[in-house]
Amino acid sequence: MIYLGIDVGGTSIKVGVIDGSGNLLIQGEAPTLVGRPFSEIIRDMGACALDVLERGGYAVSDVAAIGVGVPGVADQQTGMVVFCTNLGWHNVPLRTELQKHIDRPVFIDNDATVAGYAESVYGHGAGSHSSVFLTLGTGVGGGIVIGGRPWSGFHGVGSEIGHMPMDIEGEHCTCGNDGCLERYCSATAIIRMGRQAALQHPDSALYAACGGNVDKIEAKTVIDCAKDGDDTAMKVFRRYVNYLCMALDGIIVFLDPEVIILGGGVSKAGNFLLNAVRERLKDYILFKDLPYSRVEIARLGANAGMIGAAMLGKKFVEEA
Amino acid sequence: MIYLGIDVGGTSIKVGVIDGSGNLLIQGEAPTLVGRPFSEIIRDMGACALDVLERGGYAVSDVAAIGVGVPGVADQQTGMVVFCTNLGWHNVPLRTELQKHIDRPVFIDNDATVAGYAESVYGHGAGSHSSVFLTLGTGVGGGIVIGGRPWSGFHGVGSEIGHMPMDIEGEHCTCGNDGCLERYCSATAIIRMGRQAALQHPDSALYAACGGNVDKIEAKTVIDCAKDGDDTAMKVFRRYVNYLCMALDGIIVFLDPEVIILGGGVSKAGNFLLNAVRERLKDYILFKDLPYSRVEIARLGANAGMIGAAMLGKKFVEEA
Repeated sequence: MIYLGIDVGGTSIKVGVIDGSGNLLIQGEAPTLVGRPFSEIIRDMGACALDVLERGGYAVSDVAAIGVGVPGVADQQTGMVVFCTNLGWHNVPLRTELQKHIDRPVFIDNDATVAGYAESVYGHGAGSHSSVFLTLGTGVGGGIVIGGRPWSGFHGVGSEIGHMPMDIEGEHCTCGNDGCLERYCSATAIIRMGRQAALQHPDSALYAACGGNVDKIEAKTVIDCAKDGDDTAMKVFRRYVNYLCMALDGIIVFLDPEVIILGGGVSKAGNFLLNAVRERLKDYILFKDLPYSRVEIARLGANAGMIGAAMLGKKFVEEA
Repeated sequence: MIYLGIDVGGTSIKVGVIDGSGNLLIQGEAPTLVGRPFSEIIRDMGACALDVLERGGYAVSDVAAIGVGVPGVADQQTGMVVFCTNLGWHNVPLRTELQKHIDRPVFIDNDATVAGYAESVYGHGAGSHSSVFLTLGTGVGGGIVIGGRPWSGFHGVGSEIGHMPMDIEGEHCTCGNDGCLERYCSATAIIRMGRQAALQHPDSALYAACGGNVDKIEAKTVIDCAKDGDDTAMKVFRRYVNYLCMALDGIIVFLDPEVIILGGGVSKAGNFLLNAVRERLKDYILFKDLPYSRVEIARLGANAGMIGAAMLGKKFVEEA
């Protein structure tokens, strides 16, 4: 049997055919074109899926389950997407609509949750009992796995780790609260701090790297300059690592998962980030002599969403 | 069959005989006398247990399991207390030692975890899938239940909710970090804020209530004056409720349990606290239109530790 994994974002619909061992066999993509009626977007999800199956030489009857990761909140029971800001969806009957085009069992969860599930089952968390996956991107997304099961909360509104409070009167967040974790731990936070620091230090390599136009500074600019030893960039990087380690410490004292996996754009800094985090995290840990969560860099990259969605489908259809 | 629940604290050892439905049938108590060798403390735990059994007319063979809640970190596999600041214990073989005095199956977990388990199974969380229990006392302890099982983390160092970071450069904590949650959400925090406010407002009812000696202000003083409408005390109470709601919001966006239960000294404020929290929490919630964790006041009081420990023993011996 094969499994379809669909990853719907604000830009594109990605569909993958995945085997029972989590291998991505063939994939396709279509533009989401946000703003259209949901029925059209879901029709294109179905069309993309049928196209990928045909190209791979598979029949619809070969598909044991379809998993869908959405950038929002889903209800497993009803197959509804309850709330999804990026797509402008509110109570969209995704399962029912999708089954009009491809009539197989459909399971839906949050995109960071399914990506975290993929990393937990096939990435560095393989075989782990529990894991927390963080996407360090424009914002900070989270995926929790406990006892080998993805966990989005009892009401489906959990694992939104980017919005945990981290600073009582801190930076204002788009969500309306102040001091949310993603204001300090996202790529956006590195960019903000990097731009401020470059303006304050026009003699820095960081300032030179953007040709004096600090609006051109990205997270990668800061990290590359830090790797090259620029003092200004290194200070920004260290501050970011401090914030991230405070956040990781919060995850550990609360949930203490077996492994924490760092994904998203910032995680492309690889061992430069990982080594700094592992070293600094020790300072924050409550029980200094006891073992705590292993920290790793994500392995599955941009395909984690498709793979995790498909494997979610596999898990739930096997249990059903 | 009956179950023994033992709650060991820095002051006393409490032992209860509990039936299979979580009813406390008879109880006993002995002083802990911290500073003695662990073997003596554990001997007194055994002696207290045997005494309670005898007074209740039970034989040792009636005891299906013994559960022990300790104010620290335990290893379920080995039956060791790995770390316990209050008792000064480090790698203490509690199970083996206790079985020298009363040879029945012994299961050990963190005291807030077992109290949370009791509240989850027999308190306001009865029948719930998942719960987070908070003890709002000198510090803030936490107990997590997921899928009906107590969860202290993969390495046993989780559910230490009092040490989640909440303010980046905030109040210094005894643990060594700055801005831990318990600096803002404990009874100690109310006392600190109440004393400061009373000094600044010598015309307040709060100042009068302590006869001008602010060192006499306790959490109850602040809450009683707030209930009576004193403006100064009310401002402290509102500030405390704000902090607590930020913390609850953090628990919800992360774990989203079915229910959150408030215990410990501060929870004695009852509906005065509960109504204020339920009202203010709405402002912090990320998905304002969606259901989220129900907040309740703990019901089992000081017996939760014994009952939860016994019920932990019941659960694990039935699974073994």
